Amino acid sequence: MKPLNIGIVGYGFMGRAHSNAFRKVGNFFPLDRPIVLKAACGRDAAKTQAFADTWGYESIETDWKKLIARADIDLIDIAAPNNVHAEIAIAAAKAGKMILCEKPLAMNAPEALVMTKAVEKAKVPNMVWYNYRRIPAVTLAKQLIDEGKLGKIFHYRAKFLQDWTISADVPQGGPGTWRLDASVAGSGVTGDLLAHCIDTALWLNGSIDKVTAMTETFVKERQHALTGKKQKVGIDDASAFLARFSNGSLATFEATRYARGHKALYTFEINGEHASISWDLHDLHRLQWFDHRDPGIVRGWRSIHVSDGDQPYMKNWWVPGLQIGYEHSFVHQVADFLAGLASGQPAAPTFRDGLATDLVTDAVLKSAKSQRWEKVKRA
Amino acid sequence: MKPLNIGIVGYGFMGRAHSNAFRKVGNFFPLDRPIVLKAACGRDAAKTQAFADTWGYESIETDWKKLIARADIDLIDIAAPNNVHAEIAIAAAKAGKMILCEKPLAMNAPEALVMTKAVEKAKVPNMVWYNYRRIPAVTLAKQLIDEGKLGKIFHYRAKFLQDWTISADVPQGGPGTWRLDASVAGSGVTGDLLAHCIDTALWLNGSIDKVTAMTETFVKERQHALTGKKQKVGIDDASAFLARFSNGSLATFEATRYARGHKALYTFEINGEHASISWDLHDLHRLQWFDHRDPGIVRGWRSIHVSDGDQPYMKNWWVPGLQIGYEHSFVHQVADFLAGLASGQPAAPTFRDGLATDLVTDAVLKSAKSQRWEKVKRA
Amino acid sequence: MKPLNIGIVGYGFMGRAHSNAFRKVGNFFPLDRPIVLKAACGRDAAKTQAFADTWGYESIETDWKKLIARADIDLIDIAAPNNVHAEIAIAAAKAGKMILCEKPLAMNAPEALVMTKAVEKAKVPNMVWYNYRRIPAVTLAKQLIDEGKLGKIFHYRAKFLQDWTISADVPQGGPGTWRLDASVAGSGVTGDLLAHCIDTALWLNGSIDKVTAMTETFVKERQHALTGKKQKVGIDDASAFLARFSNGSLATFEATRYARGHKALYTFEINGEHASISWDLHDLHRLQWFDHRDPGIVRGWRSIHVSDGDQPYMKNWWVPGLQIGYEHSFVHQVADFLAGLASGQPAAPTFRDGLATDLVTDAVLKSAKSQRWEKVKRA
Amino acid sequence: MKPLNIGIVGYGFMGRAHSNAFRKVGNFFPLDRPIVLKAACGRDAAKTQAFADTWGYESIETDWKKLIARADIDLIDIAAPNNVHAEIAIAAAKAGKMILCEKPLAMNAPEALVMTKAVEKAKVPNMVWYNYRRIPAVTLAKQLIDEGKLGKIFHYRAKFLQDWTISADVPQGGPGTWRLDASVAGSGVTGDLLAHCIDTALWLNGSIDKVTAMTETFVKERQHALTGKKQKVGIDDASAFLARFSNGSLATFEATRYARGHKALYTFEINGEHASISWDLHDLHRLQWFDHRDPGIVRGWRSIHVSDGDQPYMKNWWVPGLQIGYEHSFVHQVADFLAGLASGQPAAPTFRDGLATDLVTDAVLKSAKSQRWEKVKRA
Repeated sequence: MKPLNIGIVGYGFMGRAHSNAFRKVGNFFPLDRPIVLKAACGRDAAKTQAFADTWGYESIETDWKKLIARADIDLIDIAAPNNVHAEIAIAAAKAGKMILCEKPLAMNAPEALVMTKAVEKAKVPNMVWYNYRRIPAVTLAKQLIDEGKLGKIFHYRAKFLQDWTISADVPQGGPGTWRLDASVAGSGVTGDLLAHCIDTALWLNGSIDKVTAMTETFVKERQHALTGKKQKVGIDDASAFLARFSNGSLATFEATRYARGHKALYTFEINGEHASISWDLHDLHRLQWFDHRDPGIVRGWRSIHVSDGDQPYMKNWWVPGLQIGYEHSFVHQVADFLAGLASGQPAAPTFRDGLATDLVTDAVLKSAKSQRWEKVKRA
Repeated sequence: MKPLNIGIVGYGFMGRAHSNAFRKVGNFFPLDRPIVLKAACGRDAAKTQAFADTWGYESIETDWKKLIARADIDLIDIAAPNNVHAEIAIAAAKAGKMILCEKPLAMNAPEALVMTKAVEKAKVPNMVWYNYRRIPAVTLAKQLIDEGKLGKIFHYRAKFLQDWTISADVPQGGPGTWRLDASVAGSGVTGDLLAHCIDTALWLNGSIDKVTAMTETFVKERQHALTGKKQKVGIDDASAFLARFSNGSLATFEATRYARGHKALYTFEINGEHASISWDLHDLHRLQWFDHRDPGIVRGWRSIHVSDGDQPYMKNWWVPGLQIGYEHSFVHQVADFLAGLASGQPAAPTFRDGLATDLVTDAVLKSAKSQRWEKVKRA
Repeated sequence: MKPLNIGIVGYGFMGRAHSNAFRKVGNFFPLDRPIVLKAACGRDAAKTQAFADTWGYESIETDWKKLIARADIDLIDIAAPNNVHAEIAIAAAKAGKMILCEKPLAMNAPEALVMTKAVEKAKVPNMVWYNYRRIPAVTLAKQLIDEGKLGKIFHYRAKFLQDWTISADVPQGGPGTWRLDASVAGSGVTGDLLAHCIDTALWLNGSIDKVTAMTETFVKERQHALTGKKQKVGIDDASAFLARFSNGSLATFEATRYARGHKALYTFEINGEHASISWDLHDLHRLQWFDHRDPGIVRGWRSIHVSDGDQPYMKNWWVPGLQIGYEHSFVHQVADFLAGLASGQPAAPTFRDGLATDLVTDAVLKSAKSQRWEKVKRA
Repeated sequence: MKPLNIGIVGYGFMGRAHSNAFRKVGNFFPLDRPIVLKAACGRDAAKTQAFADTWGYESIETDWKKLIARADIDLIDIAAPNNVHAEIAIAAAKAGKMILCEKPLAMNAPEALVMTKAVEKAKVPNMVWYNYRRIPAVTLAKQLIDEGKLGKIFHYRAKFLQDWTISADVPQGGPGTWRLDASVAGSGVTGDLLAHCIDTALWLNGSIDKVTAMTETFVKERQHALTGKKQKVGIDDASAFLARFSNGSLATFEATRYARGHKALYTFEINGEHASISWDLHDLHRLQWFDHRDPGIVRGWRSIHVSDGDQPYMKNWWVPGLQIGYEHSFVHQVADFLAGLASGQPAAPTFRDGLATDLVTDAVLKSAKSQRWEKVKRA
């Protein structure tokens, strides 16, 4: 079996999540190609080496261009901040590397389009790390929808609520807080949190036609971690929008980092003619399911503990009743990426799918400014 | 329509609960006989008059013997403490009155047996206020069991947890705390709380063969509210037992007033071959239902919001989704009692059913002393 | 004590809910004036008489003008469909009667304004039956907000979800389904369900500045129950809007009758700087409370079982742990109305408060048509 | 750094769980000694080799005696069925190997005592895989108890409910079902499931003085997977007991494989004077916490999402709100075992702790036969 040699760029939170998936996938999923952690790349050599030691990368680089230039690297995994995705991805595509890119795909949709064209022109396998599609409960939701169990869809609602930036003392910029720096993140919760909600929604419920949105920046100035200066905050702290899907359903979406009491409450609910589904990241191993076709006197929302062997991905893990967690969604994504390589049926979400999400977030940000309904372009 | 004239003894918590049921039942359930609140009886004339004014009783008495002697009273409702149930009930039976008696039926099973024989000899309609049978969710559980939906029963577990006597400053005896005075209450949580659990269990799961029990009195002395003196506490603060039902199922039962955080957490769960049920008084309008015959991938516990017109009692109330509460169980009991009068099929639980529960609680208390398994006599 | 003589117009669902409150309030709350159910009024004499018999109204009328003309009536309670509120209320005000009016106050805000001016000119006590303010858990939320426990408010979100009109076979018009007939109801879920959400929101979070909305009618034609003909449906089946409150907080609101699995799921959540609150009508006796000032390692959402004597209204009912239900909110409203009469401090929501809600619903409907943000006028 | 060379015996469910922990621990926890997966041992060479390939073991053995004899092995991990624990452990101790042994420690307490004496005599580091102590929510419970937050303890209740053996078609004996064969498992749910409950209880609440128990075997005969014959079932399908702890608290314990709807519902609850705790394996990342010292009007059970950096073990994983799962408890156990090696303070539970649990399960099984209360010997 020919190994798949990985070169990763970035060693932060996502660098760890991806590395864990690469290391672990073969223990639980049969692979056609064994994964080899070939090289880790970061600007700080000492930190990159420590990261490589922890995760077992064979070597390090401090310049991503050198990483891409290496013949022994098959796949470039981009786990760096948003503002460098495009440059790295386009270069990697030109070098003929496979690419896994952290979400959101780009700083904005025009940039995402260039990246998408680059990988499609180079015909390199590509994927975006919208990992929540592969939480087993979410995958089960997709399965139920695809089987037509819900019938015609009337409503979709999603929100992603956090509370970690309420204090005005949280800085912007720098390692742990670059998501608050618009020049690095592109946008605030729209690109960070709503992007997750939108990716899942497009997958489960099809395309969005138009949106009306509002955004707010509650804390107007924050100290920059790198410059030490108080600077204007350019990101959106909160973002909400109404939407109409092409299938005729109505939707509400909301994300914020000012919802006291919620650490990472990503929830969605879908109401169909026959049945409804809801899910919550805080208890990610459960799917809520209501089936109107149950007999009337015992009709109710079922709390499905998604841990049985006949539920998505679960036969590869432990025994019924024993839950897996957040990190496993990344493992599943790698397993599916490899299965896609083997079968020739590329696993989604591809860069083009990531572009579709960026087109929605762009429309949301545009609507928040224009104060009008905005149409969403198709990817 | 001939009215049904009520004479109530007692104006405490249960006097209010019963009176509310009498006043309200006709607004929601069609009755053959209109209910008339004829007389309230209590030792303190002023308090009794105030109670009568509040609830609309036409007259008062301060001696229950006079109440029973009145020709214009059809039914004696006993809402007084446990130690006077027997005397009043036996006298009322002799006078040919119908009797509703607060639970537990008596201070102990031998006393309950005398009462039962008295009403059966006098052939007067009789009932014990084990009101939880008529919470719609509990009645629905009974319906599902009777339809055979659970199959063979393996397990029954019930508990009734409170926390209001943890402080050693709570007195015993007197109006609000007679339940801590063994000479008035007979026993502690065994007769007060476990009796509820046992009544429901006998109804849902049939008879109990034998038990092994333990009891504890955590606070050994309390001031008596009437004498003002510190006196030994004679009741059980906590009581738990294992049981074997005649149908082969195994059970655990527990009650306590020392479970911090639980005000009135009466829960039961039944595990059958095909399905399981659980219920919780703190959210009494919901029934939890698990049906193994659901398709595997969407199997889960259903939270049934028991408020639809096709669920027990609910068509007489509001619209689906709008919940009723604790007091309504008493209304249902009166409605069923009256329906039983009209049909000639007496509604349960009768005094004989109340006796059956007292026989279990007696066996529990005996086992706690003997430290052995004790058989339960049949009523 | 001078009695308060009630004349009610309407004997449907709300006629029952109000009557139950009138009959029951004196059993649980001390009243300055005893309530007398003097007369019930409806167009169908036989049905009105049956209603009067069930609830104990002393007499009936079949013409509301005669009811208003009666000298022995102190208060007109309007429990009739929306399209007759204005006419009756204005006439009652002119006759110097106190008025309780079912919500929404009027068919639209201009009509509500005329009604408001009428009662204010006549100086008659007036109130709108937005009963959810007086669910104890909701009242507790108000108390916590007023005490400043939440700090600055960032977010408000509310939804009211039902599923009873999904079938195209549900008719419009007539006794049980007049809410689907725009000529009687004024609007669909906007006036019926969102109005509840808005009333609570204005009370808890202050005024709304502007909204952007969308509405949808999923079933375009329905048979009319009175004419028997298929007619165009004029109401909105679903309605959602984004809002900005005057206090700087952002909001999402949604109502629908097409959310499979939800019977009457009215929920709201408020996120403040220090604490958050959420509530759900399906389990109305609970308030969810998150306090960031709790020690970090044991921080979490508290599920408060609102049944203790020190929580709003609860000392008048049973004992801790025993829940009350939907109907009790109406009892509380009557108790507070009477307390307001006695104290001279009128209880809210008055007609002017009802007008404020209608001004928001008008803006919502206008925005749904204009496809623009619309400002909300102040009441 | 001197590596720690692991030799594992067994490649079933537990072999996977342990191997995952060994492989993963160094990625998340700083280790003094890197772990090396040196050898896997099983009777079937092909299956053992496949297991070794999947997990990265450098070599295989088919005879555990040879494994123990190898000089390059520092630690023997026993992941084989119960009936071989003693023999392997005693031999490993004699050979001076460190030992990690799957639970329950032995077939019965006398056997466990011999094992305990062997490791103590040999002075080899030893530990039993009672992994649930190291679910972060459970560790947090321990922390709160040790800080005295609960005050005097009144009640402990635990249950472990499963439903996988209800069908009479489930065989006994053989790879996946040796837990139903008494000659291999020692006992049924008492040693398999109650042992977990007891280990946690002894850790959290101290020693147990005496018990009264009942057990049941619902399916009396099952086909043996190896012999193909119908044979009498020797294990207990269900087991329940009442207990008195040395600290004066009362307890109920129950385990069964006949609780329809529960896959692996291990729950415990502790009620103290000031506060209560409960936990549930089906949602293992949450701890329920009730603190009576909270202000009365906002008192309630808190649902603590144990995923913050200041909660046990969590700073080593992801970010707040993102949950870990079942497998991580094993990772924590390895991390703590290694920390214990480094510090010289051996991590619990040691073999002696495992013996303590076996002494309780022996008393439970004895009581179920004797039908009497039985005292529990101290380890």
